[in-house]
Amino acid sequence: MNSLTGFKSANLIGTANQDGSTNLAIFSSVIHIGASPPLVGMISRPHSVPRHTLENILATKQFTINHVNSTIFKAAHQTSARYESQSEFDATGLTAEYLQGFKAPFVKEANIKIGLSLADIIDIKINNTKLIIGQIEWVALPENIVEMDGKLNIEMANSIAISGLNTYHQTEEMERLPYAKI
Amino acid sequence: MNSLTGFKSANLIGTANQDGSTNLAIFSSVIHIGASPPLVGMISRPHSVPRHTLENILATKQFTINHVNSTIFKAAHQTSARYESQSEFDATGLTAEYLQGFKAPFVKEANIKIGLSLADIIDIKINNTKLIIGQIEWVALPENIVEMDGKLNIEMANSIAISGLNTYHQTEEMERLPYAKI
Repeated sequence: MNSLTGFKSANLIGTANQDGSTNLAIFSSVIHIGASPPLVGMISRPHSVPRHTLENILATKQFTINHVNSTIFKAAHQTSARYESQSEFDATGLTAEYLQGFKAPFVKEANIKIGLSLADIIDIKINNTKLIIGQIEWVALPENIVEMDGKLNIEMANSIAISGLNTYHQTEEMERLPYAKI
Repeated sequence: MNSLTGFKSANLIGTANQDGSTNLAIFSSVIHIGASPPLVGMISRPHSVPRHTLENILATKQFTINHVNSTIFKAAHQTSARYESQSEFDATGLTAEYLQGFKAPFVKEANIKIGLSLADIIDIKINNTKLIIGQIEWVALPENIVEMDGKLNIEMANSIAISGLNTYHQTEEMERLPYAKI
């Protein structure tokens, strides 16, 4: 079932609770919702078991999105283990990095990092999941991936893709096609 | 903005209106919503301009998802041109294929094809988009991509990924990682 929709984005979601205790979780459901305002969404599974990511976002109204790249994908995957009290940063060796005024931690080893404020949470009643929507407040990325036309070459940043629950893929650009006209 | 969330799935959404006139549109926002029941979601942009896909889904309560592969990505991309009365099947040379009892057309040239019934449409009020949710009713895929453990190797089916609005990528599997434990 998890493979049927095609390739998925690979992102680490960084959050903290009110006391500053951090959480880091890999998500493959992050999607573009709109450009103006800049909105991003992700699916949170049912709240019946502890979901630290959702709880922390509700508490602080902030989260970070950090692209998984080919050098950190094993540590990123390991964040999906059920750590109860230990932070996934400590458990996996990934490094928390902070931005002034932002409670949620970024992942130092990620090449593309996005800071977001909570914009909305929408209940998907049919299967008791939630669509968490964030507005982009801050972005960091390597200068050399910004192309002449302002587009980003995320392949050059070593961002990777996921299929199914646990298969990681590098990519190879085939072609950038022009805006389609009749 | 469209590149910031990472790699995206590449799917052709097939629909028909009550008269059987077909529409085909490339979507990069198809995501897995849940496995039980098997639910898939996709984002539809504001309804202020004609959105044949959404109108047809509302009319017939059915649609198809067809994986874009490396041999049809140029035709798939061309479906994003603003065809008014002509079907994108006729305009791009892709072939409509039908399943008994299913009004929505499948794409013959796709290797992975999914038939869905409309399960819900959720308004995302913050930017006037909609999350269209379908329940999977039928799946066709090549036998050789089903692995021993029942997982699908979508890379072997030549499924591809998108970054930004118009860049197409082939993938290369790095590793399938085991279920993460503490």
